[in-house]
Amino acid sequence: MAGTDKSKTPDDLSSRGLEGASAMGPAVVLIEPQLGENIGMVARAMLNSGLTDLRLVRPRDGWPNEAANKAASGADAVIERARLFDSTAAAIAGCQRVYASTARPRGMVKRLVTPRQAAAEIRPAIQAGEAVAVLFGPERSGLVNDDIALADTVIQVPLNPAFASLNLAQAVLLVGYEWYQSGDATPGQQLDSGGAPLVDKADLLFFFERLEAKLDDAGFLQPIEKRPNMVRNIRNIFQRTDLTEPEVRTLHGIVSALTREKRSQDES
Amino acid sequence: MAGTDKSKTPDDLSSRGLEGASAMGPAVVLIEPQLGENIGMVARAMLNSGLTDLRLVRPRDGWPNEAANKAASGADAVIERARLFDSTAAAIAGCQRVYASTARPRGMVKRLVTPRQAAAEIRPAIQAGEAVAVLFGPERSGLVNDDIALADTVIQVPLNPAFASLNLAQAVLLVGYEWYQSGDATPGQQLDSGGAPLVDKADLLFFFERLEAKLDDAGFLQPIEKRPNMVRNIRNIFQRTDLTEPEVRTLHGIVSALTREKRSQDES
Repeated sequence: MAGTDKSKTPDDLSSRGLEGASAMGPAVVLIEPQLGENIGMVARAMLNSGLTDLRLVRPRDGWPNEAANKAASGADAVIERARLFDSTAAAIAGCQRVYASTARPRGMVKRLVTPRQAAAEIRPAIQAGEAVAVLFGPERSGLVNDDIALADTVIQVPLNPAFASLNLAQAVLLVGYEWYQSGDATPGQQLDSGGAPLVDKADLLFFFERLEAKLDDAGFLQPIEKRPNMVRNIRNIFQRTDLTEPEVRTLHGIVSALTREKRSQDES
Repeated sequence: MAGTDKSKTPDDLSSRGLEGASAMGPAVVLIEPQLGENIGMVARAMLNSGLTDLRLVRPRDGWPNEAANKAASGADAVIERARLFDSTAAAIAGCQRVYASTARPRGMVKRLVTPRQAAAEIRPAIQAGEAVAVLFGPERSGLVNDDIALADTVIQVPLNPAFASLNLAQAVLLVGYEWYQSGDATPGQQLDSGGAPLVDKADLLFFFERLEAKLDDAGFLQPIEKRPNMVRNIRNIFQRTDLTEPEVRTLHGIVSALTREKRSQDES
């Protein structure tokens, strides 16, 4: 347990941004981070994801770091709770599971998972009382083999293999995002759009503009200061329904009929 | 169709980073982006995600933009193919589906989906021949209602509600990441770790160090320049197996037995 400092474990979650965070997430361990700005951006990505346990191993520019404070704006609470360690081993003491986030497999035999699979494993592990850490290496070089060897499992983000490099805060964000999703129950919303081809947006806009011109002629979109909101509300009525090409032709026909204007393609 | 310039549609995917990209992804439409640096970071996030169709509506500092080129380093091909529009309507002409990415619902009745749900809808829509765009607003203010009204559906990223704000490139990255995942078939890898409690990392490291000291004594970890690699390979053998507490006690017992060292807790 040498190296862990239980007295600084996050426990007061009443500060700004922490209401939506849980003390029960994986620790984010930054190994030899270089720029304070990146540490601050990591703190923001963590708080976005409801994570608060930041551990720093030998940050290049020392700690505390003014550039980190500045870049963390809004996520100050994560920076204030960050803990400093002089070795990766000390930073992960007390953990039962350690993941290493790296874009580059180094020829070691390791379990390899995606961020989504990692989140699906970490959440029940933490609920069962285990402590979990995720290691991230220095900005340019990434994790060295000795640190990867300390991990049970490598997290690799499936991305365009021809252009997979992420900056430090983005890597933390994707891992943290999946962590958050794994505990999120945002309901799906679906509408059945039917089989007909959906209308081209240019054709839909032409319909809106024609309709609104007719309504202007009729004095409907009054008073003028309320017109923008009325137009938006009308457009939203039609936008929500995934209109098809024939439906928009029909709507044109309705407008024509109502305004007694004859057009060759009227069908209804 | 006014405003689209089909002659600049991405078609040559032989440039660096584009091998893993497909011309068949949603367009990313940045409305009034302010900093060139952010446009460059968006280009990188797009190429990470295999997306190449970047459309700019009234970028504040004009176009082309040297800061964008610099920040895009490596994703130059996306910047070079970017197309400029003077209105959101022009940028989405030719599209059948438009999504608006915004952290803030504005009291409009709109379909609301997560990035994951959006990706699950967009992929089959594009495969069916539809063109799709995702709108992102200016850095600080986000999308205005008039632009949200042009969209069929709002994409909201489920994140810590007390700290949900993302920078522009991060928002694009999360939407693009889900797009990429929806077409990715990275296999899951799982090991059954059994029911016993997993070992504390500090205890596991103590075992490694004891074992390695014994191996040093025995002259096994020679020559010295190969020692680091040998140690890593040995550690990886044990790391991979999700060792439990009793297993590590057993391993200690084995080491003790093999070296004829007597310890009180030996059990095997």
